[in-house]
Amino acid sequence: MRMDHIGIAVESLSDSIPRFARLVGCAQDEARITEVPEEDVRIAELTLRNVELELLEPLSEDSPVGAFLKKRGEGLHHLCYEVEDIHATWENLKAAGFQLLSSEVKTVRGYSYFFVHPRSAGGILTEFKQKRTE
Amino acid sequence: MRMDHIGIAVESLSDSIPRFARLVGCAQDEARITEVPEEDVRIAELTLRNVELELLEPLSEDSPVGAFLKKRGEGLHHLCYEVEDIHATWENLKAAGFQLLSSEVKTVRGYSYFFVHPRSAGGILTEFKQKRTE
Repeated sequence: MRMDHIGIAVESLSDSIPRFARLVGCAQDEARITEVPEEDVRIAELTLRNVELELLEPLSEDSPVGAFLKKRGEGLHHLCYEVEDIHATWENLKAAGFQLLSSEVKTVRGYSYFFVHPRSAGGILTEFKQKRTE
Repeated sequence: MRMDHIGIAVESLSDSIPRFARLVGCAQDEARITEVPEEDVRIAELTLRNVELELLEPLSEDSPVGAFLKKRGEGLHHLCYEVEDIHATWENLKAAGFQLLSSEVKTVRGYSYFFVHPRSAGGILTEFKQKRTE
């Protein structure tokens, strides 16, 4: 299993992209910005040598990331691991008693994913993801 | 720059090693346990394909990790980036106005490191580290 990305909740991408780019030594114009309407969030991806940082700006206050910011402020939002068989991972973790945050694996453009509740993952919201090539 | 490890504060290594090993799909007897007296902490390292998880159990309540657990509970404690020239990184970040948590780079067995305050690193305690081969 490999770490795919580290999701970081931020108030504003326009403030945070230059700060993080400077911190981790990459050019700010390398940040790839996308919107994910399913999660009500705008994302800037910064690519390091072995992992990506995803800066997450909420599109509304009552989105998951908006609620997180209100409660905890800026900081780590989730860790995402890339797996080879997302359905097998889902079944294994469910059988092992981990608290999953959806009743099934979700699929959006290009990948399938699900989340594990921080309560059963050492206090960290945890995503598992499988890239789809078909 | 690459991500070296993700530091996670835990109440107890004996509870957390099996949980995280199960979560990320590695054998729990692969966890390497070390003590770092300088930081008053006991660490279990779990190796993923591209990054390490460091589970951090405080050796005392008033240690940095002990204080963190009391305030925030279990969860992400810090991110650590590996750099090729720790002193150049220190100078660059200081010049750029980042708030560094020590007045100089520290060196312990095998590596040199320093921390950046969460306040200037998007809410995340951030470590930079250079492995020493000499």
